[in-house]
Amino acid sequence: MRTVVDTERPKRAVVVGGGYIGLEMAEALILRGLEVSLVERGEQVMGTLDPDMGALVSGAVAEAGVQLHLGESLEAFEVAGGRVAAVVTGKRTLPADIVILGLGVRPNTDLAARAGIPLGVRDALRVNDRMQTGVSGIWAAGDCAESFHLVSRRPVHIALGTIANKQGRVAGINLGGGYATFPGVVGTAVSKICKWEVARTGLQEREIRDLGLEYVAAAIKSTTRAGYYPNAGPITVKTLAEKGSGRLLGAQIVGIEGAAKRIDIFATALHAGMSVQDMINLDLSYAPPYSNAWDPVLIAVRQADRAVREGG
Amino acid sequence: MRTVVDTERPKRAVVVGGGYIGLEMAEALILRGLEVSLVERGEQVMGTLDPDMGALVSGAVAEAGVQLHLGESLEAFEVAGGRVAAVVTGKRTLPADIVILGLGVRPNTDLAARAGIPLGVRDALRVNDRMQTGVSGIWAAGDCAESFHLVSRRPVHIALGTIANKQGRVAGINLGGGYATFPGVVGTAVSKICKWEVARTGLQEREIRDLGLEYVAAAIKSTTRAGYYPNAGPITVKTLAEKGSGRLLGAQIVGIEGAAKRIDIFATALHAGMSVQDMINLDLSYAPPYSNAWDPVLIAVRQADRAVREGG
Repeated sequence: MRTVVDTERPKRAVVVGGGYIGLEMAEALILRGLEVSLVERGEQVMGTLDPDMGALVSGAVAEAGVQLHLGESLEAFEVAGGRVAAVVTGKRTLPADIVILGLGVRPNTDLAARAGIPLGVRDALRVNDRMQTGVSGIWAAGDCAESFHLVSRRPVHIALGTIANKQGRVAGINLGGGYATFPGVVGTAVSKICKWEVARTGLQEREIRDLGLEYVAAAIKSTTRAGYYPNAGPITVKTLAEKGSGRLLGAQIVGIEGAAKRIDIFATALHAGMSVQDMINLDLSYAPPYSNAWDPVLIAVRQADRAVREGG
Repeated sequence: MRTVVDTERPKRAVVVGGGYIGLEMAEALILRGLEVSLVERGEQVMGTLDPDMGALVSGAVAEAGVQLHLGESLEAFEVAGGRVAAVVTGKRTLPADIVILGLGVRPNTDLAARAGIPLGVRDALRVNDRMQTGVSGIWAAGDCAESFHLVSRRPVHIALGTIANKQGRVAGINLGGGYATFPGVVGTAVSKICKWEVARTGLQEREIRDLGLEYVAAAIKSTTRAGYYPNAGPITVKTLAEKGSGRLLGAQIVGIEGAAKRIDIFATALHAGMSVQDMINLDLSYAPPYSNAWDPVLIAVRQADRAVREGG
C-alpha cells in the first residue's frame, strides 16, 4: 500500500484584482518565491488612485517581479483533476497552481433586507449619524453600514477597519444610553507594497467629475527627508482642488518610507474644509531626518494654489 | 629641530544646553566615542516640551550614555595653557577637552535698532503680515524677525528654518511688487535624538498658564505601528486643550521611528482652530505598517475630550 501525498509546493500564482488585497497578496507570494501574475481590469492597479498615480504603483509592482496584465478581465478558470489549472482572461490563459481573488467587498445585507431594514448605497445598511438604521432599536456599524462622505456630502460604502472601529464606538455609546455621533469620513486609505507607501484621501478625479465639479490637479516630486540625509527617497504628492474657491478636494501620495502618513495632513484639512490657499503656510514640522524645509505637502499645495489662481 | 603636534583627540566633551542643538551635538559626540556630559539649567532637557515629556527625552539621552546634569547652570570655565580645561557649574567642575555651547539664539538687530527700525519681542524686528518692518521700504524675514502665534495671538520669536523659508517667500513676493501674507505660526518643531523622535506644536503648559487660560492635559501611550507588526515601538502623545471649549492648544510626541511626523496632524488642527471633540473622528490613515486602527493621535484626543467633558 502506498500513500500518495502531493508534496509539490505551488510555483505559479495568479492574483485577480489590483486593489489593496490583491497587491498585498502578490507581494507576499513574490517573497515566498512564486512566479506571480496579476490580472486587473482597470488601466492601472490601485483604482482608488487616479491613473497617473496608480501608474507609479504599477511600476513598483512590476519592478518587484510581478507580471502585470492590466486592462484584462477574468473570464473563466480552467480546472484539471478537481483543481484550478489556469485563469482565462479576455486576452490570454495564465497557468496557475494557486489563484487568489481580491475582487472587492460587498455588504452581506440580504437577511437585513428581508427583515425590512432599509438599504442604501451599494446595499449597505442606511444609518443616521448615531448609527441607527431605519428600523427603531436596530443599529449598525462596520463593513455592512454606510458612511457619510464629508467632501462629496453623499453616503458612501467604505469597508475599512478604522471606520468600523469609529462607528462601533458611536453605536456602542448610543446603545448604552449615551449620545454620540459619527460625522463621517473623507475617504482616507493607506497601503504598503514592497518598499512603496501609497496613500489617498478625499475624492479622486473620477469622483470629482461625477459630482460635476470643476477642479485643478497638481502633482509634485520631492524627497521624503532632506535630500542629503541618509535614506532620503522619492515622494510624489498629488493635490486636487476646486476651481475658483481652491477648496481642497483630495490628495494622493506614493513614495518610500516616511511618505504615506503625510496623507493625514490632507485628511485633517478636508475635515476642516480648508482651501489649498489656507494650507500654503501650514506650520508643518521640519528637521532633516523628516523633511526638507518645505515639506512635500507644502510644495504640492503651493502648486495647486498657483493652478487655481491661473484659473486651472 | 622638532615640530610638536598635538595628536591627542579630545576624549571628554561637555555640552552646555539641553535644547535641539545641545542634544544633537551630544549624540554626535557619543557616536564619535567621547565621554559626554550635558549641563542643562532646566529640570529636564528639551525645555520646549512640558517636563513630563522632557523627562522621556532625558531618559533616552542618559540611556545613550550621556552624563546628564540637570538643574545646573554654567558659572565659569577653567583654562589651562590657553585652552579650556573644565566647565564649572553651581555644583561641580567637569573636566573637558572640548566644550560645546548650545545656549539658544537671539536676533542680531543692533544695527537695525540704531537705524531706527522698531524692535518687538526678544529684540526681533517687528513686522506686519507682509513682512514689512516699521520703516517704509524695509522688509525683514527669518531668524531676525518676529512671527505671529496663531494660538496665543501674540508675537513670538521662533528661529527655525521652516519659518524663515516661508517668511522669505512672502517678503520676496511683496518686494517684487506682488501681494502675499504670512498669517503666522503655531510653534511646531521636531528633532531626532538617537532612536527617539521628539515633536511639539502649539503651546506648552507654561505658556498656557502665562496666558491665564484654564486647560486639561492628557498623555497616552500606544505603538507607532500595529502592535504585532515588525518594528512597532512606543509612542507617547500628550494633548492640551482649553477647559470648557475643548479648543486644542498644543500637543507633544515622543516615540521611535514613525512617531514625530504625526505632530503635523495637530499643527493642521491648530491652524483650523479645531477642538479635541472635532478631532475624535478624524479619518486618519490606518494599515498595520503605519498605525493601530485607532491612531495614537485619536486615542490622545479622545482622552483629552473626556477630560474636558469631566471638567478637567
